[in-house]
Amino acid sequence: MEKAIGVIDSGVGGLTVAHELMRQLPKEKIIYLGDTARCPYGPRSKAEVTKFTWEMVDFLQKKNIKMLVIACNTATAFTLNELKEKLDIPVIGVIQPGARAAIKFTINNHVGIIGTEGTIRSRAYTKALKKIKAEIDVNALACPLFVPMVEQGILSGERAKAVVEDSLEPMKNKLIDTLILGCTHYPLLKETIQEAIGNHVTVISSSEETARETSTILEVHQIQNKEEDIPVHEFYTTGELEIFIEIAKSIFIDPKLQMVTIKKAVI
Amino acid sequence: MEKAIGVIDSGVGGLTVAHELMRQLPKEKIIYLGDTARCPYGPRSKAEVTKFTWEMVDFLQKKNIKMLVIACNTATAFTLNELKEKLDIPVIGVIQPGARAAIKFTINNHVGIIGTEGTIRSRAYTKALKKIKAEIDVNALACPLFVPMVEQGILSGERAKAVVEDSLEPMKNKLIDTLILGCTHYPLLKETIQEAIGNHVTVISSSEETARETSTILEVHQIQNKEEDIPVHEFYTTGELEIFIEIAKSIFIDPKLQMVTIKKAVI
Repeated sequence: MEKAIGVIDSGVGGLTVAHELMRQLPKEKIIYLGDTARCPYGPRSKAEVTKFTWEMVDFLQKKNIKMLVIACNTATAFTLNELKEKLDIPVIGVIQPGARAAIKFTINNHVGIIGTEGTIRSRAYTKALKKIKAEIDVNALACPLFVPMVEQGILSGERAKAVVEDSLEPMKNKLIDTLILGCTHYPLLKETIQEAIGNHVTVISSSEETARETSTILEVHQIQNKEEDIPVHEFYTTGELEIFIEIAKSIFIDPKLQMVTIKKAVI
Repeated sequence: MEKAIGVIDSGVGGLTVAHELMRQLPKEKIIYLGDTARCPYGPRSKAEVTKFTWEMVDFLQKKNIKMLVIACNTATAFTLNELKEKLDIPVIGVIQPGARAAIKFTINNHVGIIGTEGTIRSRAYTKALKKIKAEIDVNALACPLFVPMVEQGILSGERAKAVVEDSLEPMKNKLIDTLILGCTHYPLLKETIQEAIGNHVTVISSSEETARETSTILEVHQIQNKEEDIPVHEFYTTGELEIFIEIAKSIFIDPKLQMVTIKKAVI
């Protein structure tokens, strides 16, 4: 049996990464763990996020994964370097792929980033962008209401629109031509965000970009799945199954992507 | 002194890759070699392209490069696997990055590819796409007039428009929502191609995508340039300096990107 790609997230946001992995890499099996019971990670300390992340990694390592995707910006900001160093499988986070896509897309070198308080406070995107291209001007904004809203299943409608418009107000008069959705929950609000920020801004989903780079990493390490069987994905949540399944259904609308089992995990 | 990224091409087409490398990775030094004297590679045999490519690689290896970018689709199709196997530095071609970007962008899974006879005959894009996502439907079309036209400096105007429209005619009634410019010369005709194929089609530049993946590979191997000096790039051509410089000037319009030396190379 071919090994799977392990995906971890603080909750349901990483499902947008899992969805893109399934769409862009349909031959690969995904084993996903969302720590919904302890979501959100955004307001937590580095020590706490690191502890929780290692608990998720230990759970997935018992399932014999060949690669790890940290599908959570907060966990990436706090733990990517440590996980890369200590694990003997390739590890990818969601920050560097989004940063590289922004560098590709921006023409005026003014890039906006929205994320959780933890991600924004860590300045991880700013560092990732400037490490590659120092002249990038970064506008970063924390949007603390987005994750709790998405975790409650509020993805569109008047309430979502009002929260998004209000949150993005400080970003609206900036010069940015590119906006990174620096949280894997945010692609679920992408249309509302695009509308609020305007069509002149390219909105980058770190989920799509992370799936794309996962494809590159699989090739670099020559660990692509070579079997022809259609993979049956495994999804686990530490929280309530019901709401997890409901949100998963709203993301995995393509019936071909529904070959998944969803279970409760104790970590 | 930090090592450079080596870039090889059959002529001036790879300059679009070099330009994107300089734009997306401004801290990296580029050493470029264009085999203009023996361009185009498109109609040549695999044996001949392989021999010429190795001659270019030998020239660049003496300059102590840390990574090799094969910025020519024909050379990638014929030599990527061999170069990856035999060289002890990371090697990237232009085909896989373009294929991965197409998989990310396409919604209806109908992807068009235009390239030289050699690239199209090799079916390298079709193989790269289907290896990752079997359900992608591929429409491939050779456009043998584009490279000689670009090498003569004809990049826009009525003559370019007529040639492009005529060449793309067989692609126009296809279902494609994504078109890969499967030749590094073609981004120089991008606007004319976009106009001819229609705005409903996402046109993918393998040059932009290759630069983006080069950034990923540098990070995977931890070989990013850490010095703060502004790099002075070196460009070499086996052909006439004058026309090479003229085309380079039309690509490197940003004055910050003009810190290059251009010399004649004997390989």
